[in-house]
Amino acid sequence: MIKQISSAQNPVVKRLLQLQEKSRNRKKEGVFIVEGVREIQLAFKGNYSCEEFFFCDSLFAAEGLKDLGTNPENQALITEFSKEVYEKIAYRGSTEGVMAVFRSKELSIGSLQLNSENPLILIAEAPEKPGNIGALLRTADAANVDAVIIANPKTDLFNPNIIRSSVGCVFTNNIAVGTTSEIISFLKKHKISIYTAALQASKNYSEIDFTNSSAIVVGTEATGLSEEWIANSTQNIIIPMSGEIDSMNVSVAAGILIFEAKRQRGFN
Amino acid sequence: MIKQISSAQNPVVKRLLQLQEKSRNRKKEGVFIVEGVREIQLAFKGNYSCEEFFFCDSLFAAEGLKDLGTNPENQALITEFSKEVYEKIAYRGSTEGVMAVFRSKELSIGSLQLNSENPLILIAEAPEKPGNIGALLRTADAANVDAVIIANPKTDLFNPNIIRSSVGCVFTNNIAVGTTSEIISFLKKHKISIYTAALQASKNYSEIDFTNSSAIVVGTEATGLSEEWIANSTQNIIIPMSGEIDSMNVSVAAGILIFEAKRQRGFN
Repeated sequence: MIKQISSAQNPVVKRLLQLQEKSRNRKKEGVFIVEGVREIQLAFKGNYSCEEFFFCDSLFAAEGLKDLGTNPENQALITEFSKEVYEKIAYRGSTEGVMAVFRSKELSIGSLQLNSENPLILIAEAPEKPGNIGALLRTADAANVDAVIIANPKTDLFNPNIIRSSVGCVFTNNIAVGTTSEIISFLKKHKISIYTAALQASKNYSEIDFTNSSAIVVGTEATGLSEEWIANSTQNIIIPMSGEIDSMNVSVAAGILIFEAKRQRGFN
Repeated sequence: MIKQISSAQNPVVKRLLQLQEKSRNRKKEGVFIVEGVREIQLAFKGNYSCEEFFFCDSLFAAEGLKDLGTNPENQALITEFSKEVYEKIAYRGSTEGVMAVFRSKELSIGSLQLNSENPLILIAEAPEKPGNIGALLRTADAANVDAVIIANPKTDLFNPNIIRSSVGCVFTNNIAVGTTSEIISFLKKHKISIYTAALQASKNYSEIDFTNSSAIVVGTEATGLSEEWIANSTQNIIIPMSGEIDSMNVSVAAGILIFEAKRQRGFN
């Protein structure tokens, strides 16, 4: 039995709008919205649990819903929206016609599992722009790093802009969030070398041996990494720049560092 | 004598709004708008010629105008805007308080000068998002490449979003635009090897010798490079990816390739 909603005044619509817009509501309910076929499939693949589907009949055929997920216990409710209601809620307007509410996962650093003897980890401290976080997550997926950790996050990772700009890589990565202190403790406990990208540093990144357990840590474009990271660093590293401005995008810098590590590791 | 404008209906305001919004108007007049102190200084540094300054008295002190540029022949007109008028025109609202109209430069490939025996060139074909073009230009500045070339551009480079996202690197790079055919001819004439980032390719980028004259060419995230590039390539190259999605941001991919070349060249 599929429920139908065509009024933008319906309380279901109001709830979804708040889940899209407010981190507080996502946290309070412990859920978030995923838009689009590919992203929904990736959320299932990442073992996220789906609670509800919403689709727009003129944009998406209801029979397609069964192909979206492989969760065997999936008892998700299904609601059909009018086009007007769907477009009101969807960040992408009418491009997809299907969205779903998924349950959030525990992403604390205490829950992070590493499945490698000499892990390669990407860490970003307090990244601000969803577009940069998305690009970082795409790079991390492509490099198949052992974990991505966000230190002192400015927003929750289930922000619709991050889901969109990561093209779903927020679901495919082994991901954790925590305070800088918690993450440094975790890295030290696991004897993982800490390579901090500093705005001033003497050591060229290409002179580092990244073949052992390594965490590559990047800060914000404006202020770099906090003192705590620099103080606990195994080695501060720098990408030598020789231009007029020398202001690299943070996700580009992270890509250069991670793929130098991949190169040294023979891309395994 | 400083002219003052406080009415948003003034034809000067209308003209500037159209210069901000319409590539056609920028082309027709052969000018574009630069916002912000740093960006204006970089445009002067890049030998662009300034025609007019506009500032908002409550945000920016008129005496500061003389520190913005070093063009000795600078006879630019100066106009003072009310805050309302300034904010109406400025992409960044009230953050800076100063903008200027500069004359466009000839960026055709025929005018491009190379000042190196074995240049390193970054080429992007039909990049779409201003944010990606900005990040590419920042990387190119940091790597101090010999030239950046945009093939089959989708917009003019003096688009306000590109100026902003490049943090002014659109002025610091040796830059050209042209059709893919024109650029391939230019590269062949100068005996520059063409390394095309292909979505499928057998050769790992790290196995290429980038120490000789090299052009690194990237396409769009959706469709990669056109057939013409692939057909005229010295070698198709790939960044090996091993994730779930393998969809790297184009400016991240370009950064990885350019800095592998820089590494091989000893960062000189």
